[in-house]
Amino acid sequence: MMDATKYAPGYYPAPAGYDSWVKKDHIETAPAFCSVDLRDGNQALIVPMSLDEKLEFFQMLVKIGFKEIEVGFPAASDTEYEFLRTLIEQNMIPEDVTVQVLTQCRDHIIRRTFEAVKGAPRAVIHFYNSTSVAQREQVFHKSKEEIKKIATDGATLVKQLSEEYEGNFLFEYSPESFTGTEPEYAVEVCNAVLDIMQPTPDRPMIINLPVTVEMSMPHVYANQIEYCSKNLHYRDSVILCTHPHNDRGTGVACAELAVLAGAQRIECCLFGNGERTGNVDAITLAMNMYSHGVDPKLDFSDMPAICETYERVTRMHIYERTPYAGQLVFAAFSGSHQDAIAKGMAYRREKGEHRWTCPYIPVDPHDIGRTYDADVIRINSQSGKGGIGFVLEQNYGYNLPPKMREALGYKVKGVSDHSHKELSAAEVCEIFEREFLNKNKPLDIVEVHYAQKNGITATVTLDRNGQRKEVVAIGNGRLDAVANAIQSATGMDFHLDHYSEHSLDGGSTSRAASYVSLVWGDGSTTWGAGTDTDIIVAGTKALLSAINGK
Amino acid sequence: MMDATKYAPGYYPAPAGYDSWVKKDHIETAPAFCSVDLRDGNQALIVPMSLDEKLEFFQMLVKIGFKEIEVGFPAASDTEYEFLRTLIEQNMIPEDVTVQVLTQCRDHIIRRTFEAVKGAPRAVIHFYNSTSVAQREQVFHKSKEEIKKIATDGATLVKQLSEEYEGNFLFEYSPESFTGTEPEYAVEVCNAVLDIMQPTPDRPMIINLPVTVEMSMPHVYANQIEYCSKNLHYRDSVILCTHPHNDRGTGVACAELAVLAGAQRIECCLFGNGERTGNVDAITLAMNMYSHGVDPKLDFSDMPAICETYERVTRMHIYERTPYAGQLVFAAFSGSHQDAIAKGMAYRREKGEHRWTCPYIPVDPHDIGRTYDADVIRINSQSGKGGIGFVLEQNYGYNLPPKMREALGYKVKGVSDHSHKELSAAEVCEIFEREFLNKNKPLDIVEVHYAQKNGITATVTLDRNGQRKEVVAIGNGRLDAVANAIQSATGMDFHLDHYSEHSLDGGSTSRAASYVSLVWGDGSTTWGAGTDTDIIVAGTKALLSAINGK
Repeated sequence: MMDATKYAPGYYPAPAGYDSWVKKDHIETAPAFCSVDLRDGNQALIVPMSLDEKLEFFQMLVKIGFKEIEVGFPAASDTEYEFLRTLIEQNMIPEDVTVQVLTQCRDHIIRRTFEAVKGAPRAVIHFYNSTSVAQREQVFHKSKEEIKKIATDGATLVKQLSEEYEGNFLFEYSPESFTGTEPEYAVEVCNAVLDIMQPTPDRPMIINLPVTVEMSMPHVYANQIEYCSKNLHYRDSVILCTHPHNDRGTGVACAELAVLAGAQRIECCLFGNGERTGNVDAITLAMNMYSHGVDPKLDFSDMPAICETYERVTRMHIYERTPYAGQLVFAAFSGSHQDAIAKGMAYRREKGEHRWTCPYIPVDPHDIGRTYDADVIRINSQSGKGGIGFVLEQNYGYNLPPKMREALGYKVKGVSDHSHKELSAAEVCEIFEREFLNKNKPLDIVEVHYAQKNGITATVTLDRNGQRKEVVAIGNGRLDAVANAIQSATGMDFHLDHYSEHSLDGGSTSRAASYVSLVWGDGSTTWGAGTDTDIIVAGTKALLSAINGK
Repeated sequence: MMDATKYAPGYYPAPAGYDSWVKKDHIETAPAFCSVDLRDGNQALIVPMSLDEKLEFFQMLVKIGFKEIEVGFPAASDTEYEFLRTLIEQNMIPEDVTVQVLTQCRDHIIRRTFEAVKGAPRAVIHFYNSTSVAQREQVFHKSKEEIKKIATDGATLVKQLSEEYEGNFLFEYSPESFTGTEPEYAVEVCNAVLDIMQPTPDRPMIINLPVTVEMSMPHVYANQIEYCSKNLHYRDSVILCTHPHNDRGTGVACAELAVLAGAQRIECCLFGNGERTGNVDAITLAMNMYSHGVDPKLDFSDMPAICETYERVTRMHIYERTPYAGQLVFAAFSGSHQDAIAKGMAYRREKGEHRWTCPYIPVDPHDIGRTYDADVIRINSQSGKGGIGFVLEQNYGYNLPPKMREALGYKVKGVSDHSHKELSAAEVCEIFEREFLNKNKPLDIVEVHYAQKNGITATVTLDRNGQRKEVVAIGNGRLDAVANAIQSATGMDFHLDHYSEHSLDGGSTSRAASYVSLVWGDGSTTWGAGTDTDIIVAGTKALLSAINGK
């Protein structure tokens, strides 16, 4: 069924010599972002937004900080017409926000568009016609000259009506299907439109070169942009704009490389909504710049709220792997990643670093309203000691010694591997408590009395499977004395290899957690933990746990 | 909360002069594709695959045509170990397929990896260690020399064990976190590994330069690849490999530009599964090449079946806008797009074109098992005459005249706009039938007799709201005579502006469909349609429908 001979590149590369953008390695200042969510995004929804939903979405866009918002194709449907009228008549457009309306270069549609936009404080009239080879041949059956005339006739009418209607109008022209158009011809059509519109540096005009359908690799598009940028007339009176779709999965690259090549403005949608594979994602673009230290002038600090509103009003689902916004994009399940992240976080804390350099996490999740514990370190059979230790510490305060994390790691991995599921922090804690904490069977201590004699003397009453025994032993410290007592009473052969402790809840009345490891005569190691309000008791509980774990 | 001063570029651009790849505008032959679904993809799943699920996925990968498949990190979990042993012991690895296993450069992990891979017909041992500035400083606390020694110690042990163990081993080395590593240092480490492994053109070694975390724009990565490609030793014995993640949404661009810059192999996952934002999507890469006429040597002709298996075993959802595979990626709701697509399809049919050039549809949906009617033209309030006419013709055989499509378009749009929902083909047909077809109220024809006299004479018995009347009139043809009879009987003032017909079902006994438009004395136009096994009756039914539509 698949037959590659059906296909050949359908784009027209720029002439040689228009690739100087490749020398730049990052974007220095953010371009203007124009949201086309309410038009191009909306027309791609299975169920387009209602009037109320569009109003809510518009207010969200304003709150995020968009200063240019394409609000619809008002001549195309009653809802879009009414939405625009509502915005205007109810004074819902803030002073620093410009609305934009789309119209084909057709007489009655242009006229209805001016009716719809009447009274807007400031509006961009965005007119377009299709210029690609395929559309000229297959759809319009017109020559290059005839297609250019559609554009210039449209421009003439737009200019005339803009003088007849009251309002503050700006203009945008798009040679639609630019990516299937010869760049020389696209420039010719745009220059003919510019000759009619006569923009000035004070009243510049937007020329938009859309990736209507993505047809080439992104650098080919960047070369086309550089070519057009250098060959458009009135260049200092033109705001060069890009509008990438994502058919080849490289919409973000097209937009970014286009900015290096001369584009000053990007038309985009939240979460990459839009026809087919979507319009380029405003969030990815903005956050990519942000992650390089460039302020995008858009505010995504409450990403979860933006996600909620978007999903509700568009009835679309945000893909779990959508950059910056998806549920899984900060998640680390793998042991080595978790370990590096935990160490990176610790490094950051210890050094008091301002700059974010944590391995495997491109931006600080906190910056956009996400959390470390729920979103970053997640536990399944792929996870390791670093992540498991991190989760236990973040959620329950247990700061296990590194080697004990490893011992717990094997237990947790085994449970997840065999049950085939992700484990919650509570489940990890449950495994820790079951396997290591306060284990007092078969051996338990019923009573201990300490005396400061020959170092420390401990009098210990043991219970082993219901049988009691009192035994006295000395040691360098209390725990050592108890350990010696147990060995002499039971004949066990171990030595205390590790002891550490910390307070669990903060404050002077808090519980302590103690950790003990024992190395046994056979060379094996066991770990135990104990908690108690009495630090001495916590230690003996940890010792018992390590013994009972043998 | 958002504070861009926390960030700065964390990558290290290649020295100047390594950007000659930018002169090429497309990929000429497909690189080798290595699937990492079962390892990197699997470790990113909330619930990693079970043994049986991995086996099913492996068989799907083989069927698609992958010749290199990374099957796991066998030293990391029991499931991955058992999976590899099952593949080997049950002879499930086809002769032309090479399995690949991942191991860190750590002694006991390398040893366990060789145990796991014992007896495989052919296997790539893929060893790695992390080389980035951030990991050297924050995670390993080691100097460049010490980090390089981890790599060379690993290489030495891998080489030694490969001589001790029976098997046909190939080798891959990755300087992990390459994108945060100075390219000069990455080359130094890789060359040190190559010096130990001593690859030859007959036994080449894979050097993989992963986009472990995407940190730069894609052309910066391509420059790094070109730099490494030109500075690695043993270059004719090296298969240069890329392994892009997608943190900045430009993973596909990284892979494609890397191929132009010298990469010969891509590690990728189906549907862009993988940690965080995913690994680069194998399907997008393959289909992008396909759409340029390059055979990717991977077969996606039954995409729906691949989607079904993938979603079932990974428990992930394929995003609706995923290139080529998503549910919505061929969908056109917008009127102007539908119109262009319908015309493009007609052009293709009429010209008998082999090459696919249809506007707005990057590849023929049929090539990958999708359909035109269910997947491409979909109807909501954004739709127009082209799409609505297309749906009606594809599903019900009604080929409406263009102007009648427009009249129906307004009705359908209105219904969808006010009900705020997508309409099925059946609902579109229902609107057509209700508004235009066989409408015999208030006016109906009870009986007609024709005679060939003065042109045609028609004797018509009319029923208007239950009142019958017989009237005789002449005309140029049968329909004209009936129209004249109706006008003389009722005093209506119209003239027949359009008449057309076609057979509906094919074959000589089929029904006919007729379409009539009338222009009325007040300048308005109405449309009607009629169906009947008798073509004459279909025509009079269409006429009545147009009259009753006034």
